[in-house]
Amino acid sequence: MDGIALRVGAAFPLHVLGMQRAGEPPRELPEGAFCWEVTTGSVLPIGANCIIPVEQIRRVDDQVFFMGDELPAQGAFIHPQASDRTQGDVLLCEGQKLDGPSLAVLAANGVATPLVSREPSVCVVTTGDELVEVDEPVQPWQVRRSNYYAIMGMLQLHGFSMLEHRTLKDAYDETCAVLGDIIARYDVVLLSGGVSMGAFDYVPRALEHIGVQCVFYKVLQRPGGPLWFGYGSAGQRVVGLPGNPVSAMVCMARYVLPLLDQAAKRAVGEVVSLSLTAPVPRLAQRTRFVPVQVRGGEAQPFPMPTSGDFMGLPQTGGIVELSPGEGEAFAGTRVPFYPWA
Amino acid sequence: MDGIALRVGAAFPLHVLGMQRAGEPPRELPEGAFCWEVTTGSVLPIGANCIIPVEQIRRVDDQVFFMGDELPAQGAFIHPQASDRTQGDVLLCEGQKLDGPSLAVLAANGVATPLVSREPSVCVVTTGDELVEVDEPVQPWQVRRSNYYAIMGMLQLHGFSMLEHRTLKDAYDETCAVLGDIIARYDVVLLSGGVSMGAFDYVPRALEHIGVQCVFYKVLQRPGGPLWFGYGSAGQRVVGLPGNPVSAMVCMARYVLPLLDQAAKRAVGEVVSLSLTAPVPRLAQRTRFVPVQVRGGEAQPFPMPTSGDFMGLPQTGGIVELSPGEGEAFAGTRVPFYPWA
Repeated sequence: MDGIALRVGAAFPLHVLGMQRAGEPPRELPEGAFCWEVTTGSVLPIGANCIIPVEQIRRVDDQVFFMGDELPAQGAFIHPQASDRTQGDVLLCEGQKLDGPSLAVLAANGVATPLVSREPSVCVVTTGDELVEVDEPVQPWQVRRSNYYAIMGMLQLHGFSMLEHRTLKDAYDETCAVLGDIIARYDVVLLSGGVSMGAFDYVPRALEHIGVQCVFYKVLQRPGGPLWFGYGSAGQRVVGLPGNPVSAMVCMARYVLPLLDQAAKRAVGEVVSLSLTAPVPRLAQRTRFVPVQVRGGEAQPFPMPTSGDFMGLPQTGGIVELSPGEGEAFAGTRVPFYPWA
Repeated sequence: MDGIALRVGAAFPLHVLGMQRAGEPPRELPEGAFCWEVTTGSVLPIGANCIIPVEQIRRVDDQVFFMGDELPAQGAFIHPQASDRTQGDVLLCEGQKLDGPSLAVLAANGVATPLVSREPSVCVVTTGDELVEVDEPVQPWQVRRSNYYAIMGMLQLHGFSMLEHRTLKDAYDETCAVLGDIIARYDVVLLSGGVSMGAFDYVPRALEHIGVQCVFYKVLQRPGGPLWFGYGSAGQRVVGLPGNPVSAMVCMARYVLPLLDQAAKRAVGEVVSLSLTAPVPRLAQRTRFVPVQVRGGEAQPFPMPTSGDFMGLPQTGGIVELSPGEGEAFAGTRVPFYPWA
């Protein structure tokens, strides 16, 4: 607090001995009608036990007069050493995200080199002979590579930077060879496409051929049914995402971002639940994901004309999850929300 | 959809002419009992008008038998060109954040070099003679520099990267000279400390001296009262943040992050409102900010032992804002929430 430091009981007017500046060692305050001028951040002069804010005094040359109604009590506006925390207190726990407040805590406590978890390296592998690059001419029977950008964008906005990209043709032998090489060099492998039931959907077979252990294949959900997950022999996490862009983004938000938080030893955040502003039909046998706009803490379902149409998704903030069941989830139902990043 | 492409009305069993692979130009489907095998992502063969999924057929050599209950209708599982959007439709608006979905939209539409807004350059200036570096020995009358790390962390997590740092001693002439140099080179200048009423709080005077126009100084709020804001002659945004770490972080979350979104021409997101889980006393004459933990979409007020104690803030997700008034904001009151990043 900017003001004067004095002994409680000293009789006004007080003689100002000078300035106790922030960053200077403490001055001595003798007995009697004396005080030191102090600034916010300065140490308490030795002998002082009370601060009066500058707004409550009037200074005439070296004399200070008290202009307030009531003198502050002993200890007023003094922040004693070790009053916030003491030696041995736990300040940050494992998994703490290094956000503004936690960086301030580390810095204030002199922790210049905190122990952090290693960021997992991620390889994004996109498959599909129909894909052409974004800046190449496209034929009516081709589509531009887009899942790669969506996946990379979601990973980057989620705080990951050790990201690489490979492309695969729809050919079994090449798929096996390239995946075998990739799996040896990355902590996480995210494949896009090639996991459906088509004759050229080589990904599940190729992954098993190179020794990736399947944990599950296919989930009773829409979109995103043909999702594949397994572990490499060194614990690498391998995800086969559906090639449909909406499905791929839904699986990223719902499964892959939390999986990567876990791989990075980040504490996985609690899932936010939002209240629906309009009813949404459930699916009898499957979990349903619906894109939503978040407005005033509520989730407004966003209509998707067709399952492949993702042109409206930039207007949404993420998806909500509806458990399987009959009828509809009514307006006001609280449902889990997964943001796009 | 993986399956076969046929003409509606063709009599089963159908003869399979071969594979229409994804990425290949369309094949010809002659009249009669013929079909092409198709995969998800392949173009529709010329003459076909219906797809039957692979799950509903049985194949014996080159013959295909229908095993489903009901034949799919004309157009089933076909995604016609221009059915999602047509030429001239607006896909992304100004201010759109380039998240996963919007990157997918850009890529799918061949926009390899979208027009984006320039990121503002930011200089963080920390002041205070009492500050020592995080890895230096600290005396009892000194404190370690921590606001710098908190501010940089908040800016980085919010997506800003053109960040630099300068330090200032509490001296008027040096402050004027250094700030004059900085203001000429950055779009945004964020100062920490030196804005209170102390004799060495040179920042407001120095800013006015170098021609920064004050828009406001001091806000009826706690914490964060001595907040300064103004514009440089070229429209540079200049913020003087209080030196108290809690105050600095509160002002960053509440004012500076939205200000930077505006400077970057990002659409400023709608403020989320959360429901309080416990009552919080209001301040009669001032807006009050209270750190909260976000749990299940509700805001749980987090006790702060003293105004200078920020050691507990890493456990919180941000702050809520209570308007001035008598009494308390009851549990269940919806209040605006500002996250730490």
